[in-house]
Amino acid sequence: MNNADTAQTPAKPHAAPDFDAVLTAASRIAPHINPTPVLHARTLDAIAGCRLLFKCENLQRAGSFKFRGACNAVFSLTDAQAANGVVTQSSGNHGGAVALACRERGIAATVVVPRGASRVKLAAMESYGARIVPCEPTQASRDEVTARVVEETGAVLVHPFNDARVIAGQGTATLEMLRFAPDIDTVVVPVSGGGLISGTALAALGVDPSIQVYGAEPAGARDAHDSLKQGERITGRVADTVCDGLRAELGTLTYPLVRQLVRDILLVEDTQTVDAMLLVWERMKLVIEPSAAIGLAAVLANPGQFAGRTVGIVLSGGNIDLYELSELLSLASRG
Amino acid sequence: MNNADTAQTPAKPHAAPDFDAVLTAASRIAPHINPTPVLHARTLDAIAGCRLLFKCENLQRAGSFKFRGACNAVFSLTDAQAANGVVTQSSGNHGGAVALACRERGIAATVVVPRGASRVKLAAMESYGARIVPCEPTQASRDEVTARVVEETGAVLVHPFNDARVIAGQGTATLEMLRFAPDIDTVVVPVSGGGLISGTALAALGVDPSIQVYGAEPAGARDAHDSLKQGERITGRVADTVCDGLRAELGTLTYPLVRQLVRDILLVEDTQTVDAMLLVWERMKLVIEPSAAIGLAAVLANPGQFAGRTVGIVLSGGNIDLYELSELLSLASRG
Repeated sequence: MNNADTAQTPAKPHAAPDFDAVLTAASRIAPHINPTPVLHARTLDAIAGCRLLFKCENLQRAGSFKFRGACNAVFSLTDAQAANGVVTQSSGNHGGAVALACRERGIAATVVVPRGASRVKLAAMESYGARIVPCEPTQASRDEVTARVVEETGAVLVHPFNDARVIAGQGTATLEMLRFAPDIDTVVVPVSGGGLISGTALAALGVDPSIQVYGAEPAGARDAHDSLKQGERITGRVADTVCDGLRAELGTLTYPLVRQLVRDILLVEDTQTVDAMLLVWERMKLVIEPSAAIGLAAVLANPGQFAGRTVGIVLSGGNIDLYELSELLSLASRG
Repeated sequence: MNNADTAQTPAKPHAAPDFDAVLTAASRIAPHINPTPVLHARTLDAIAGCRLLFKCENLQRAGSFKFRGACNAVFSLTDAQAANGVVTQSSGNHGGAVALACRERGIAATVVVPRGASRVKLAAMESYGARIVPCEPTQASRDEVTARVVEETGAVLVHPFNDARVIAGQGTATLEMLRFAPDIDTVVVPVSGGGLISGTALAALGVDPSIQVYGAEPAGARDAHDSLKQGERITGRVADTVCDGLRAELGTLTYPLVRQLVRDILLVEDTQTVDAMLLVWERMKLVIEPSAAIGLAAVLANPGQFAGRTVGIVLSGGNIDLYELSELLSLASRG
């Protein structure tokens, strides 16, 4: 094991993180992450009627912002905690991110993966040396298999989003973006389990309390939107969206943060998301996965809300199977 | 007309440019171009067995390095020269680049385009306001139609590569790359008409005469390779390659520069180029067109030649029709 953060008091994964936790995370993960560029495109500004700045987490190591939270969690473990490795549940980018973070620290990683997970994301986890343990695609099966791995190995669980260390790590993307572009007055990020948007809101409001933070959520996986409207956390729905990274539901730790800090959750149809994805591919020449396009899609679908503003959008990841692109293209409005 | 470079002596498009011309071009075009990032990817370094740095001209305005040469030519015209606009011949990126440069200067652009040109590249020229004049896909027809446009409009010809102002402009990409990464000891760029590689070699050797400059050329369009071997400029062949940007032949101005300054021209099969393109899409999350991948393909195909070196590669452009991707994928060695 190397780079252990042993001087640190063991982090509390179940207490709500704050802005200081984001600052701490930024310093902790700095030796490991890519400081990703913030890009813009005049054509997209013209289409959107506002100024758009894109934080390119598709260029992050392991291909998504998830590496930030995974690194913060893995490197805040004490040597004693880390000794038996880490376990997580993930069908996608978080699994690859934890696998790479564990490889960097020199400890074992196990990822509990539901059957039917994305082929390229599974390949990434394996290429970073993780042990893959399959489970059924239900939350009950995930939890059961994860508990068994913990019992058998003594590994520490790093949850994909309901973990203060992970939330704080995800917030560092927006912290970096605002340092690069301090004139941003609005931030839009995808919503799934709420790790990214919670960290984003902590970072943005910590830098400037007047910044407006919006979430963008698939209309076919609208638990966060409906939970806020209803004033109660909704669980147990089945998601129906091409955004394979946005099928989770808010957790006990993320729901109150989203409720307190986020201005609104905007619902986006898959066709709008795929259209926005194509714009980014064609106009910005960036490979992003569908989930990463939903922020831009939300801005384009709500021109009145964003007119004249300076909007920071986190392009969350770029892990997509190119051999499935033609299927996605058939969902585009021009297709 | 605005931003005219009127204090400048009219440039001589037919005399060979030198390193000073590249320096002049860099300053002239600075207000107009994107200073594109230089990116790297650890995974690709591991695959290649050398350190690779990628100059991302796919992120250049109008989607390719061609905007540099076009800007340098268009903005070095006197007001009197520019008054009747500019004409060029192009089936691709140079046409879009000239169209955008002319729009920036506020003058008319006409592009003579052979039938069968790339749909997205044609759409780009039109979106930047150029007048498109079709011709047959032969050099004779291009020249004839271009001459007619010049006669009718009094427009100035900006040739895609056989023009000193264009060559000097293209060299600025490598000048920027070497300023960002002064440890680069080898540069690899695509070869077509020779504008990019001539400018690249002028820039690289001007910065450090020990830098090795290589060209990468499709095996199905190997006029530059064969011209150097034969000691005489070969013309009149028919190119057969998926690299739609690399089908031209060296010109009278570029052939002697390539002969004098370039260490070698490496031939690359289309399958190798498509494989390299997929690596860049998947590992670097960058959309590049096939022509832009040929530099990486050349390095991967010649590991002995580049082992341990620090190689700067110009990713020349990103203008590709996504709806044709599946056809390209069928050419990949895994496909």
